[in-house]
Amino acid sequence: MDFNFVSIIGLIAGGCTTLAVVPQILKIFRTKSTRDISLGTSLITFIGLVFWTLYGIALKQPPIIFANGVSLVLVGAVLGYKLKYK
Amino acid sequence: MDFNFVSIIGLIAGGCTTLAVVPQILKIFRTKSTRDISLGTSLITFIGLVFWTLYGIALKQPPIIFANGVSLVLVGAVLGYKLKYK
Repeated sequence: MDFNFVSIIGLIAGGCTTLAVVPQILKIFRTKSTRDISLGTSLITFIGLVFWTLYGIALKQPPIIFANGVSLVLVGAVLGYKLKYK
Repeated sequence: MDFNFVSIIGLIAGGCTTLAVVPQILKIFRTKSTRDISLGTSLITFIGLVFWTLYGIALKQPPIIFANGVSLVLVGAVLGYKLKYK
């Protein structure tokens, strides 16, 4: 398989899993309700993304740092809403 | 930074973001309610994980295939519950 094709698959993958959190933030913003969202899931995902970002920094890989840094902010917003709207 | 230390950071990162979904599944199983969970987020994450798994297959990297394959099953369960308990 050619390198560019594989890179495109990776970009689609990273774009989806990073931006997927946006509809959740919009939904919470609209409903002000997070009852069904697991605090454990938000918290463990947030901690995992801190480690992914550190991993990217250790490997000096801007794509890993950037994608996980954006995810960290988005998941951080969900976590903040979860703590605000119980 | 030494390779093993970086690998440990990566393993913690992957372990957290993969297993983070488990508390959400347990919560849905307990409450039978997914009202506050965004369908768009579950669906786009699922599609993203399909592409991450394909990316791992294209690169012949078992850790990428395994971590994303497990996530795919877990997020697939959330998506299935979301469609079942509206």
